[in-house]
Amino acid sequence: VGVLGGGQLARMMAEAAVRLDVRLRVYQTSAEGPSSVLPDVHTGAWTDSECIDAFLAGCDVVTLDNEWVDLGTVVDRLPPDVSLRPGVETMNRVRDKIRQKAHMEAYGLPLGLYEGCHDRSSLDEVARRFGFPLVAKRPTHSYDGYGNRTVHDRTQLHAAFDELGGGGPLLVEQWVPFVQELAVIVARRPGGQAVAYPVTATQQRNHKCESVEVPAAVEHSVAELATELSLAAAEVFDCVGVVGVELFMLEDGRLLLNEIAPRPHNTGHYTIDACSTSQFENHLRAVLDLPLGETTLLRPAAAMVNVLGKRLGKSQSASLASALAVPGASVHLYGKDVVRPGRKMGHVTAVGASIEEARNRATEAARRLEL
Amino acid sequence: VGVLGGGQLARMMAEAAVRLDVRLRVYQTSAEGPSSVLPDVHTGAWTDSECIDAFLAGCDVVTLDNEWVDLGTVVDRLPPDVSLRPGVETMNRVRDKIRQKAHMEAYGLPLGLYEGCHDRSSLDEVARRFGFPLVAKRPTHSYDGYGNRTVHDRTQLHAAFDELGGGGPLLVEQWVPFVQELAVIVARRPGGQAVAYPVTATQQRNHKCESVEVPAAVEHSVAELATELSLAAAEVFDCVGVVGVELFMLEDGRLLLNEIAPRPHNTGHYTIDACSTSQFENHLRAVLDLPLGETTLLRPAAAMVNVLGKRLGKSQSASLASALAVPGASVHLYGKDVVRPGRKMGHVTAVGASIEEARNRATEAARRLEL
Repeated sequence: VGVLGGGQLARMMAEAAVRLDVRLRVYQTSAEGPSSVLPDVHTGAWTDSECIDAFLAGCDVVTLDNEWVDLGTVVDRLPPDVSLRPGVETMNRVRDKIRQKAHMEAYGLPLGLYEGCHDRSSLDEVARRFGFPLVAKRPTHSYDGYGNRTVHDRTQLHAAFDELGGGGPLLVEQWVPFVQELAVIVARRPGGQAVAYPVTATQQRNHKCESVEVPAAVEHSVAELATELSLAAAEVFDCVGVVGVELFMLEDGRLLLNEIAPRPHNTGHYTIDACSTSQFENHLRAVLDLPLGETTLLRPAAAMVNVLGKRLGKSQSASLASALAVPGASVHLYGKDVVRPGRKMGHVTAVGASIEEARNRATEAARRLEL
Repeated sequence: VGVLGGGQLARMMAEAAVRLDVRLRVYQTSAEGPSSVLPDVHTGAWTDSECIDAFLAGCDVVTLDNEWVDLGTVVDRLPPDVSLRPGVETMNRVRDKIRQKAHMEAYGLPLGLYEGCHDRSSLDEVARRFGFPLVAKRPTHSYDGYGNRTVHDRTQLHAAFDELGGGGPLLVEQWVPFVQELAVIVARRPGGQAVAYPVTATQQRNHKCESVEVPAAVEHSVAELATELSLAAAEVFDCVGVVGVELFMLEDGRLLLNEIAPRPHNTGHYTIDACSTSQFENHLRAVLDLPLGETTLLRPAAAMVNVLGKRLGKSQSASLASALAVPGASVHLYGKDVVRPGRKMGHVTAVGASIEEARNRATEAARRLEL
């Protein structure tokens, strides 16, 4: 299996690949990423045909570690017997968030109000129609708070257009008055067979995932609907592999889809330690068209807390011992040499008899990590 | 961390190393082993000083994937700031099974009757004293049925002396009329802090581990005593890292120690999928003198079944899909290119609400794997 992108997701896929005796090869654009420690890594530009050819030679399936990979050269050079999973149609529909929303809308999936704004007058028109606050997003390459911001007035909205739009359109969303953000990890095979993991409650800060608790403390009917909508979203995009689906829960229990990412997802990292089959193993099984593994929780509850950088500099792991001393905490470090404020450096998962127990353990271990 | 030996244990240690961001380097004597897929592998003879020096350069700690490693050159070349864990004293006491038994006996640990026989007359004397059947073992390099056999009469005993003794002494043990074989995985830090995993019931055939069930269906007091004896065994050998301890349970509930292996152990593979912290992660934590992780089971029961080779030839994984279709089965393949009858090719773990559920799943998935 070839993986485009050498971030922490490729690195965690590699852990799952070893046990299935699947050979994983990674293509990365920088020699410094979390996957640099893996045995079979090709480093080059997305447009370097020669390097891409060498990477593709011997692959049966090619998949992605992130949706912002520049696929042009890969698709051009892809030998006929090598499958790209998820496929290029899926990627094209997903990676432009305006197109993604339009596609979900076309299939009748519930969404908040949104508009792709191409000029300043449409900005003002949308602001009048939706009211402030609004969420402004760069349609592509926006993730973890990069390229996203909440705007509270006309000045901020126009500034976002200049700074995030980059000459192209800006995605403007009506602020959704959610009471809880939810996420569901789906794994889907080429034939359409799919499984969903339990519904998680996610805590975001500055548009970035901070922590995840599972199962989400929501009514059974809400969890069922969230699962149904997530499976439907994976289906309408014909996703193959793992898909992370983010949803908003409103006060009356109604759900709106926020966005999907056609790859293993930060909100699914808890599955490594808390489920029979991790999202990374199920991603590999799905792209290899192998039977999917069980998605149930092994313990009543689990919590995952991201370890974010708190400073700028070289990372160090002197605090690891202190974090490992927290009982039941599973620490995952991504091996990033450079720490930046807010950068995802690792995560901690804890399971427990209750959400409180799991949350306390994961939070305490993550707090102790100073990378 | 440097690992001497490139078998499946080093390979599974590598999975645990990635998440802790511990760099693992393997020294192997054959380029074809399970660890050949790892990123940092040195291949050479145990006596190749130059190759050993290159391997040792940059290591903080050196540990072992098996106890039959020829340590001479490593110990000679070991820089003063690099720790060998477990240490050379521990290894010398453990690797010769006659010496191992004498050491346990000296500390008052309960053992079956045994004798190191240096000549034919002592063979006959021991046979008269113990009675047949007897278990004959080569004192070193005996594992998984290699170098071990049960003998039923004087002719078989003398043949074992010729074929297994190899000019040195033969370990002769009185047959222990056990009703159950048990095993306990212990992880121990340099300072002596130690944790034990739950007591497992193991099924052996031809002196080779076939399957493991956990928790063992024994009285609480028996499980407590097994844990105590196992911690004591790790202590008297001053083991650092993970130790697999094998015990016999007699009909009256009494326990005898069989033997110990100062490394991650086949009977502890279930911990990867069934416990918060795998034996491989706790081995790394222990040799790095980091706090040890929780050893409790995540589900009420787990079972592990070895996948043994059934033929001689090149291995192939066409049956993987069929095995993955068994719900709740976690399949682990070791990537061995050549299959031989009885060779350990992989294992399957399943967890469940009961031993029966776990056993049925693991057995069915293992049965489906034709490697």
